[in-house]
Amino acid sequence: MNLIDYIESKREEHLNELKEFLRIPSVSTKSEHKPDIERAAQWVADKLRAAGLERIEIVLTKMHPLVYGESMNAPGRPTILFYGHYDVQPAEPLDLWTSPAFEPAVRDGNLFGRGTADDKGQVHIHLKALEALNHAAGKLPLNVKVMIEGEEEVGSANLWDFVQKNRERLKADALVVSDTSMLAKGVPSITYGLRGLNYYQIEVAGPAQDLHSGVFGGAVPNPITILAEMIAKLHDKNFRVTVPGFYNDVAVLSKQERKALNSLPWKEKEFRKTVGAPGLCGEKGFSIVEQLWVRPTLELNGIWGGYTGEGAKTVIPAKAYAKLSTRLVPNQDPGKIAKLVEKHIRKLLPKSVECKFELLSAGKPWVAPYSHPIFQKAIHALESGFGKKAVFIREGGSIPFVTQMHDTFKVPCVLMGFGLPDENAHAPDEHIALENYFGGIKAVALFYQQLAAQ
Amino acid sequence: MNLIDYIESKREEHLNELKEFLRIPSVSTKSEHKPDIERAAQWVADKLRAAGLERIEIVLTKMHPLVYGESMNAPGRPTILFYGHYDVQPAEPLDLWTSPAFEPAVRDGNLFGRGTADDKGQVHIHLKALEALNHAAGKLPLNVKVMIEGEEEVGSANLWDFVQKNRERLKADALVVSDTSMLAKGVPSITYGLRGLNYYQIEVAGPAQDLHSGVFGGAVPNPITILAEMIAKLHDKNFRVTVPGFYNDVAVLSKQERKALNSLPWKEKEFRKTVGAPGLCGEKGFSIVEQLWVRPTLELNGIWGGYTGEGAKTVIPAKAYAKLSTRLVPNQDPGKIAKLVEKHIRKLLPKSVECKFELLSAGKPWVAPYSHPIFQKAIHALESGFGKKAVFIREGGSIPFVTQMHDTFKVPCVLMGFGLPDENAHAPDEHIALENYFGGIKAVALFYQQLAAQ
Repeated sequence: MNLIDYIESKREEHLNELKEFLRIPSVSTKSEHKPDIERAAQWVADKLRAAGLERIEIVLTKMHPLVYGESMNAPGRPTILFYGHYDVQPAEPLDLWTSPAFEPAVRDGNLFGRGTADDKGQVHIHLKALEALNHAAGKLPLNVKVMIEGEEEVGSANLWDFVQKNRERLKADALVVSDTSMLAKGVPSITYGLRGLNYYQIEVAGPAQDLHSGVFGGAVPNPITILAEMIAKLHDKNFRVTVPGFYNDVAVLSKQERKALNSLPWKEKEFRKTVGAPGLCGEKGFSIVEQLWVRPTLELNGIWGGYTGEGAKTVIPAKAYAKLSTRLVPNQDPGKIAKLVEKHIRKLLPKSVECKFELLSAGKPWVAPYSHPIFQKAIHALESGFGKKAVFIREGGSIPFVTQMHDTFKVPCVLMGFGLPDENAHAPDEHIALENYFGGIKAVALFYQQLAAQ
Repeated sequence: MNLIDYIESKREEHLNELKEFLRIPSVSTKSEHKPDIERAAQWVADKLRAAGLERIEIVLTKMHPLVYGESMNAPGRPTILFYGHYDVQPAEPLDLWTSPAFEPAVRDGNLFGRGTADDKGQVHIHLKALEALNHAAGKLPLNVKVMIEGEEEVGSANLWDFVQKNRERLKADALVVSDTSMLAKGVPSITYGLRGLNYYQIEVAGPAQDLHSGVFGGAVPNPITILAEMIAKLHDKNFRVTVPGFYNDVAVLSKQERKALNSLPWKEKEFRKTVGAPGLCGEKGFSIVEQLWVRPTLELNGIWGGYTGEGAKTVIPAKAYAKLSTRLVPNQDPGKIAKLVEKHIRKLLPKSVECKFELLSAGKPWVAPYSHPIFQKAIHALESGFGKKAVFIREGGSIPFVTQMHDTFKVPCVLMGFGLPDENAHAPDEHIALENYFGGIKAVALFYQQLAAQ
């Protein structure tokens, strides 16, 4: 049986195994899920062993373990380093899921559950592609290093420490990552650009304690109102970020690249349908694709303060809070941007309140010099695995690790994503299209086979 | 033993009994406290009986029961109707209480616990004053009707229905209420004005579901940002409410009243200390006392949306929410103001989102024509009970019921409050000064005695 026939014969088995992986609620941001995180790490280690990997290690870190394995039995053949993550976003709000977040269910050709698209489903594609290659040849036909972390959704705090301590061991000819999306259903894609991400938290403190809004209202600073007034000043009427200097280092796209991006088979109508809002809003002067992929943003991710329960409570709260983030593009520097944002926010707040500003995480943007031949091999493997034309795209999300790896090892990074933009990564009803999951296993196996044949 | 000596002899007993009352967590806004509400109603009924009241009823309503009792054994003497409430605000945030909210504790001459000042402590003052009068004369020397409700903190939804159905039964020569504050420690006060209260909730809905802020950020409406931008437009730089027509019907104070209010022994320094914020902020052109008592306000009472847990979640939420309220002054009409606020908010929101606007409750402002002789009797009773000069004040809070009763029965309403503005009503560490609790019992007993002697 050839490689593809073998993969085809295993569909049901693959799907059941993925469901097993998805049932582990490995939410990295909540300490109560620590045991689940450990269970997920062990699960990944077992499957790496089954795929023919050796020297498998569950590396303990200050937070969540990282799983490493390698197979170096193909002398003279290239070495790839595959990276993925087994941790997931919180599932809240739970009541908005059609079926429970950690009980995977198939509906209409999609597999639903937290982590299906981001990133357990995509990690599993590689585990099964490697297992198929190992089965077909009795050993892996190229050298493979695999590193699956458990802290991606909380900023990969300890990943970099591991990489720095293992620079020799991790050396490879290319980095392969599947944590991105295809442009659209039926359009397999290689992502060559990612935005960076800085995440911040702000606390605005006014009165020393919560006050009765009847007795005190009208004469005291209200932290909610003041926080809202500050947030309102962060964008101008053209939806440009007002932080002075924010756009200073933004790289201008070549006419050619701008044209290529705007000519992709990207469907605005489908995007609008996915978003589902009465209207869109973005930076004036740029197409939606540009707003999403090559323009920096400032987004509010959370806000809270005062009484948020059932009914009414007439309170002026002592404090109000917001979580916000900036997505960064080449050549913005995360450290510099964080300082500009903090300075601007402090300037916007009146003297009647105090403010705590925290930078929770910082990550650089990345863009690939994709002229390297490995990108052509990847595109061909995608086209063979899916039987469709494949394209080069950028993405609005962030994988800080890709930037760091590219900066450190100076090797090409191939971002081969099998998610779709409307699959609700980070939201209720996250899912992956089964045709992309199964197509992905074939495409990745073919890609590795072609790299081995070089 | 005379009335005052009898009251003095019962201090410890009174305090212990009040603690018993405070231990019942009768939080009216939360359905889980329904059994506690019922227990509190029963407790009040028992104490009314002990004070010599008759025909005691626990009146069931659509929400929480109301307790009624009367004593009509003083023919030819005046009849007073005393109103209070046995329900309390939620105690959250629980971790900010020095001692638990429902385990009353004495520290530094104050009794701490939810409901001490608002309003269980003040209700108890009347229960014990009546009990003392009943004991002193073997019966109550004036006609008394008592009505203690369980829905004051949630808008008194069913109280009015009861009043309408019992107009004859409730007829009295005066209404007496103790749910307000004294101007300051050592300054017993009669409140002759209250602000009205409209309470609103807003939902701003953008995307059909939560979206990944990397994949979608920069091109879609963010409900948090849009809600914040709307809130920011509700006040101008002079802290005036921008709702068109908001101030149209506001009564202008006479020079005399303005002067009297600004000459009270009100201490700005203590107010600033109580607030504890780095600065104050209020409507330009008015003193703090005026901002608090005679000017209308718009305050944010709660806000929430997106991720509010530990760590980071890169989400653009589908929805964001706010609770807000307007305090109203004579002659603003709650219905008219609610319509103006809704119209303005809908106008401020962009077409990229949808908005739900709810009026949770509405209540009129009130001001007393305090030339009636009963006010002089009340002031003298306060001065005798406390041994201090008493004053006429207004208050920023709201007791919708007072307005309704005044409008319906056209009798004087005497608001004799024994709380203090810094006693954290509605906030953690709510308390009442024991000197005001004990002084209150004496003053109320003397007031009733003087009314009976007329």
